[in-house]
Amino acid sequence: MFATVIHGERDVRLEEVPTPTLSTGGDAIVRVVAACVCGSDLWPYRGVTPIAHPRRIGHEFVGIVEAVGSDVEKIAVGDFVIAPFYDCDMTCVNCRNGVSTSCLHGGWWGADDRVGGFADGGQGEFVRVPHADGTLVATPEIPDDSLIPGLLTLADVMGTGHHAAISAGVTAGSTVVVVGDGAVGLCAVLAAKRLGASRVVAMSRNEDRQVVARAFGADDIVEERGQAGIDRIKAMFDGVGADCVLECVGTAESMDQAIRSTRPGGMVGYVGVPNGGSELPIRQLFGTNVGVNGGVAPVRSYIEELLPEVLSGAIDPGRVFDLTVPLSEVAEAYAAMDERRAIKVMLRP
Amino acid sequence: MFATVIHGERDVRLEEVPTPTLSTGGDAIVRVVAACVCGSDLWPYRGVTPIAHPRRIGHEFVGIVEAVGSDVEKIAVGDFVIAPFYDCDMTCVNCRNGVSTSCLHGGWWGADDRVGGFADGGQGEFVRVPHADGTLVATPEIPDDSLIPGLLTLADVMGTGHHAAISAGVTAGSTVVVVGDGAVGLCAVLAAKRLGASRVVAMSRNEDRQVVARAFGADDIVEERGQAGIDRIKAMFDGVGADCVLECVGTAESMDQAIRSTRPGGMVGYVGVPNGGSELPIRQLFGTNVGVNGGVAPVRSYIEELLPEVLSGAIDPGRVFDLTVPLSEVAEAYAAMDERRAIKVMLRP
Repeated sequence: MFATVIHGERDVRLEEVPTPTLSTGGDAIVRVVAACVCGSDLWPYRGVTPIAHPRRIGHEFVGIVEAVGSDVEKIAVGDFVIAPFYDCDMTCVNCRNGVSTSCLHGGWWGADDRVGGFADGGQGEFVRVPHADGTLVATPEIPDDSLIPGLLTLADVMGTGHHAAISAGVTAGSTVVVVGDGAVGLCAVLAAKRLGASRVVAMSRNEDRQVVARAFGADDIVEERGQAGIDRIKAMFDGVGADCVLECVGTAESMDQAIRSTRPGGMVGYVGVPNGGSELPIRQLFGTNVGVNGGVAPVRSYIEELLPEVLSGAIDPGRVFDLTVPLSEVAEAYAAMDERRAIKVMLRP
Repeated sequence: MFATVIHGERDVRLEEVPTPTLSTGGDAIVRVVAACVCGSDLWPYRGVTPIAHPRRIGHEFVGIVEAVGSDVEKIAVGDFVIAPFYDCDMTCVNCRNGVSTSCLHGGWWGADDRVGGFADGGQGEFVRVPHADGTLVATPEIPDDSLIPGLLTLADVMGTGHHAAISAGVTAGSTVVVVGDGAVGLCAVLAAKRLGASRVVAMSRNEDRQVVARAFGADDIVEERGQAGIDRIKAMFDGVGADCVLECVGTAESMDQAIRSTRPGGMVGYVGVPNGGSELPIRQLFGTNVGVNGGVAPVRSYIEELLPEVLSGAIDPGRVFDLTVPLSEVAEAYAAMDERRAIKVMLRP
């Protein structure tokens, strides 16, 4: 089969690799129907995180189950399934606590250390899925093609935006600011409105993304950044800032923007993979009672809640995909994301 | 009148100072009935935070109102009142949000910059109280002397322990670990049980404090610290740690202990004044979804909730006072706290 391999900075290639086979009683083989490129894939692509040797990449996909191990009970051949960006058993104590990203037996796509051996990256034709009963969620029937983008967001960005909102404690009547206008930030706008936020401000200086943010329910857009952005936000919210600020970037600058846009006693919900090297300023947080909560989003734990609304059309997070290319053009998909020509790129094998 | 002045490291003296007078329509003069020494008073006492010039000290007191300004409506001469460790108006947006420590017009005892000028430190005979209607809470009647210790804890340590528990999200059924066996940590045990925690572990290696922790509802005591302490805690809670960990010390070591004793997806509630110079390790928090919430405790905002239970005897946080000395022996009070001969020392003018 063919799958994406990253060789180095700005060097991703579709290559022929071994087609996966079942190796444990609990795994499944999924034929990928759609995959995509994540903002976090850009860190190695841009050389920010080093690549020691060529490796498989991609962690978001939906597809059709081609084969299941003899112990698999909930997933069947022919099912349309959503895979989160990690595998998990959904039975261990952390999964039961809703933190499936900390599954005691789970791990990451494209890694050699998984139960049963290698688990494929998501940007390919087939993936071996460990813990298929825990990892995968099947839709009630094969969805219409128009639903594929929305369903694919449940693999990562919609669940991650939702996690930012949940972590910040967004509830009915909350005032919310979203820092970051990537696919996750836009989904965070949608998630905050869905949870009942009374006012959501999206921070964005990109016109295309502002349009999506508005469509997802943003009441206001703030283009300023840094101190000017903080001053704008404070002026909008009683001079003190918003109840909940959702940090969806992961740099030191964006975290600072988030913390200083939060009112005393408010909460930052953060999901941006920390890449700025900056630790959190505890004395500043202490003095203002601003909390910081979040992390790598346990999106698997949210799929059952969000799936019915995607299927019914009540929410349409699939709008974050503004470019679709065949898997054979994966290099172009990365370039379009890297150059911010696209918000998020879907790959179709 | 006489009040306590700190001159330098291990040098506190009771000195004659001007008796305060009313200076705004909204202030009050309170005759101190009882005051105390705070763990945070030990930072300047020990020379950890520098003392540029002699200054008044003390921020916890209860007393009788001697005089009120013409604008004061809720507090009357003769009332027995509890003062939080700061003044606040309880009408600004931050006070309305429950974060009275961030009052837009509030400030600290012993400071020159208060509305109407200097506000006295708490370890003295009289205090001028700005924003008397907001700052002070009067008891329904003059309390029996046996209730003074419990009422005095509402000025700081009981409200601060409660804030740690609230910040960590302690609720019915939560599992809780308390790091720190000072008066705040012990009150945090009491607060966590009061909020319905199913199991509370106090980390302490001091026998006297263990006795109080048990009396306050601690189910278990852990004497180990560092990695050994974390291993014990994990073993007690499904191998992953507790839901909520209350950090009541303020050093880099205690915060590390707290973070690593929390289960994935759990929350650290912290109220120890950060003094270790350590920032929060964001990548570790991100990977485990451990949140950090808390800060300088808005104890004024909690007095109405906790006061009836102190008056009825439902809770008895006054047990943290294990030494009472006359105000004239304030130097001995500091020494006893510094040398850990006492958990908390009450001063009676």
